[in-house]
Amino acid sequence: MELQNFILVLDILGTVAFAVSGVLVAMEKRLDLFGVLIIASVTAIGGGTLRDLLIGTVPVSWMLQPEYLLTIIITVVVAILLQGRLASLRRSLFLFDTLGIGLYTIVGIERGLAAGLSPGICIILGTMTASFGGVLRDTLCNEIPVIFRKEIYATACIAGGALYFLLEALGVPGFWTYLGGILAVVLIRLVAVKFRIALPNIYRGRE
Amino acid sequence: MELQNFILVLDILGTVAFAVSGVLVAMEKRLDLFGVLIIASVTAIGGGTLRDLLIGTVPVSWMLQPEYLLTIIITVVVAILLQGRLASLRRSLFLFDTLGIGLYTIVGIERGLAAGLSPGICIILGTMTASFGGVLRDTLCNEIPVIFRKEIYATACIAGGALYFLLEALGVPGFWTYLGGILAVVLIRLVAVKFRIALPNIYRGRE
Amino acid sequence: MELQNFILVLDILGTVAFAVSGVLVAMEKRLDLFGVLIIASVTAIGGGTLRDLLIGTVPVSWMLQPEYLLTIIITVVVAILLQGRLASLRRSLFLFDTLGIGLYTIVGIERGLAAGLSPGICIILGTMTASFGGVLRDTLCNEIPVIFRKEIYATACIAGGALYFLLEALGVPGFWTYLGGILAVVLIRLVAVKFRIALPNIYRGRE
Repeated sequence: MELQNFILVLDILGTVAFAVSGVLVAMEKRLDLFGVLIIASVTAIGGGTLRDLLIGTVPVSWMLQPEYLLTIIITVVVAILLQGRLASLRRSLFLFDTLGIGLYTIVGIERGLAAGLSPGICIILGTMTASFGGVLRDTLCNEIPVIFRKEIYATACIAGGALYFLLEALGVPGFWTYLGGILAVVLIRLVAVKFRIALPNIYRGRE
Repeated sequence: MELQNFILVLDILGTVAFAVSGVLVAMEKRLDLFGVLIIASVTAIGGGTLRDLLIGTVPVSWMLQPEYLLTIIITVVVAILLQGRLASLRRSLFLFDTLGIGLYTIVGIERGLAAGLSPGICIILGTMTASFGGVLRDTLCNEIPVIFRKEIYATACIAGGALYFLLEALGVPGFWTYLGGILAVVLIRLVAVKFRIALPNIYRGRE
Repeated sequence: MELQNFILVLDILGTVAFAVSGVLVAMEKRLDLFGVLIIASVTAIGGGTLRDLLIGTVPVSWMLQPEYLLTIIITVVVAILLQGRLASLRRSLFLFDTLGIGLYTIVGIERGLAAGLSPGICIILGTMTASFGGVLRDTLCNEIPVIFRKEIYATACIAGGALYFLLEALGVPGFWTYLGGILAVVLIRLVAVKFRIALPNIYRGRE
């Protein structure tokens, strides 16, 4: 499989996973069909939209590539039909979600480089691309964003982004730089979740 | 009355109605004068601002056309003075609000077309223009947006937008295309509210 | 000290104060390290980011000037280390915060003028630059923004902005126009807080 196709498959899987995570939160809040669709869309494309706005890529990406919205609509319909059984898919969804985060991080970095930004800012842009959709989802559903509270999520994005620039500085070819960055994000998150590794506690005294 | 004047009147009425809906929510939360003014402004111009940002029309519209902000300021002052009697105006306000939604939908579509976007994306842009102000109002007031929960609001925008493109494809002249789209949004919403038509329930089992 | 250096010092102090106010709110919500960092950043650069997006200055300022993010990161680390003693610094922080608001207001106005906007819109832009960071901080932490409820905050920004344009119209040289605007914001806020001056109550009947 060529790199372009590989990326496309990951991108679609990531969009599906983000959309489903939006559907799950929205249904917990008993939103109606339109509300569920909006929360799913915002979760899946919110990060990329913020990125595009901040660097000035307008009209934003999803307006020019309808396949994202189509993927989201189909995902929402299927997720609503399968609602009773979504719980049993939780493991696969977690994997898609993690792949999506890895991919979105690296995509965000590449867009930042294309806009002439420095590596540090590009890593922030990649982390935003991967995480802002979930922040919007939780804010619109009137919750404090979950990634501000417990997931070692952004840390994985930052580490993967740093590896990307390290590999590039070492002269590794584009394909492997890309793949290395994504895999680092995925592995760090999987290991952190499996061994319940969290960010160090910053609060003094009894918890 | 010419089309331009007709649109201007609708636009002012829509701005007034949206601003008042912001005042009502903000006063329920006991915000101070500044808070009420901000929520009214965000409700009235939030949708158009998001639209302008996403397609890259900057500075955004209200920065170049001060009549919107003037309308909002006057509306807020009058609404605060009349606060005891706003309830008795509820029916007129609902009508203005519905006219505003119809107009904002079609304005959003025309801006999308001017930016070279496809019909499907233009309809989404029109729906956003009409509904995002209310979403921002509710989010800033710490509520889950009401249109995610019960109003058949976006559905009316989407149907009106679809009619607009249908009329255009049939070769109907610009004025009637415009008017047909607005009227479709208005009628669908009025009928839906009168007969309590809602989106189909997506939840299985007991409610 | 030259104007440029003076502004730079104020800017850094303002960024520190805004970042600390973000840390305080985020730690009250028991966010993790990443959450605290995000809320601090959003508080410090949210207003400028919104301003840049609305007038079309992209990539937004903080992407091109890494000193803001560095200041924020150092501030967050120091604030977490000193957490028990932050309360005793409350007075200094309030002063920095007020200086920051004054400065951000005038910076926002100057960016608006550079974009060719009218004085009224520039004052709004300055007020946004100074206050939107706090709005975002509170919204993300699931609170109704504090400036919508009690602080005579925006009023100080608007008055300082008006003085700026008045001085300019009187032919006062740039340096004094700049300084006059900042000082007006600072003094109005200090006096309002000291004498508990608030906006007039807009609610009828018993409170």
